[in-house]
Amino acid sequence: MPNLSPLSSTLRPETTSDIFRTQPTQADVDAVERLVRSTGVFSADEIGIARELVEENLAKGVVASGYHFLFVDGPNGIEGYTCFGPIPGTNARFELYWIAVHPQAQFSRLGKRLQIASEEAARALGAVLMIAETSTRADYAPARAFYERQGYRLLADIPDWHDEGDGLAIYGKKL
Amino acid sequence: MPNLSPLSSTLRPETTSDIFRTQPTQADVDAVERLVRSTGVFSADEIGIARELVEENLAKGVVASGYHFLFVDGPNGIEGYTCFGPIPGTNARFELYWIAVHPQAQFSRLGKRLQIASEEAARALGAVLMIAETSTRADYAPARAFYERQGYRLLADIPDWHDEGDGLAIYGKKL
Repeated sequence: MPNLSPLSSTLRPETTSDIFRTQPTQADVDAVERLVRSTGVFSADEIGIARELVEENLAKGVVASGYHFLFVDGPNGIEGYTCFGPIPGTNARFELYWIAVHPQAQFSRLGKRLQIASEEAARALGAVLMIAETSTRADYAPARAFYERQGYRLLADIPDWHDEGDGLAIYGKKL
Repeated sequence: MPNLSPLSSTLRPETTSDIFRTQPTQADVDAVERLVRSTGVFSADEIGIARELVEENLAKGVVASGYHFLFVDGPNGIEGYTCFGPIPGTNARFELYWIAVHPQAQFSRLGKRLQIASEEAARALGAVLMIAETSTRADYAPARAFYERQGYRLLADIPDWHDEGDGLAIYGKKL
């Protein structure tokens, strides 16, 4: 499988056939916003949070921030990325905070490769469980189906969590 | 009911018979740690998080940090406090991140007064739902019973969330 990224910083090439960039740069704050915005499914609030997580990593470093990244760079910017890290107050439980792939990239392939690499990276950091939270809204059905195909199990479904008619689906997968 | 705190900064005295201090100071970082530690139920990780929330408020201010506080000061330090704020990515949903009362204070009274004042303050900020998360462990039974007495409903129960045998109980109350 071809490498899709410059190799300035690489992730455990022995455990995955993919190599992703792990170190964010200042330019990624805007680049992540452009990518997340391109998907058309995230609110202004959520886009702000995506930016913040990159900024927190840049300000505090990966360990203190708790925000780990995998990036796939393409000719026109970031084609996909994930952000994940340990859930504060838990023992070796991690959360996949973000996974986003540009609409022009094959979500089913790039999304899956990013997901698998994130799980491998989390496991290498000691994680025993990966949590993924998403919405119960109809337009998030592809996201829920994606997690279910990747072996995630629905752990909780809380109606009206985000807003009226917009519940919270909490998925988990043992690593 | 007597006021328990200096009135340098006060919370909506028209909506509650209690008046609590809302503005943290640098000294509260250590004072909150001492209080939280005195309860005997929180881990080192959790105590670190309690400190961080005060630090975030001091560094960014209440709005940007999203961490609101109510403090009850006594002759030997903080007797009780809450920390609450809007849940990122939700519309007017708030979470009660912390409520702690010194073992020598009457938990049933001071805890309840802090809880009610936090709900009133959140409602004044537009909140329609207050979330409280705690553990399913046996030693957290008093915390769960406390929320249930205050009208909180169990929205989700996720086994092994924090650790093996230490699940997550998510409570919610419409405001």
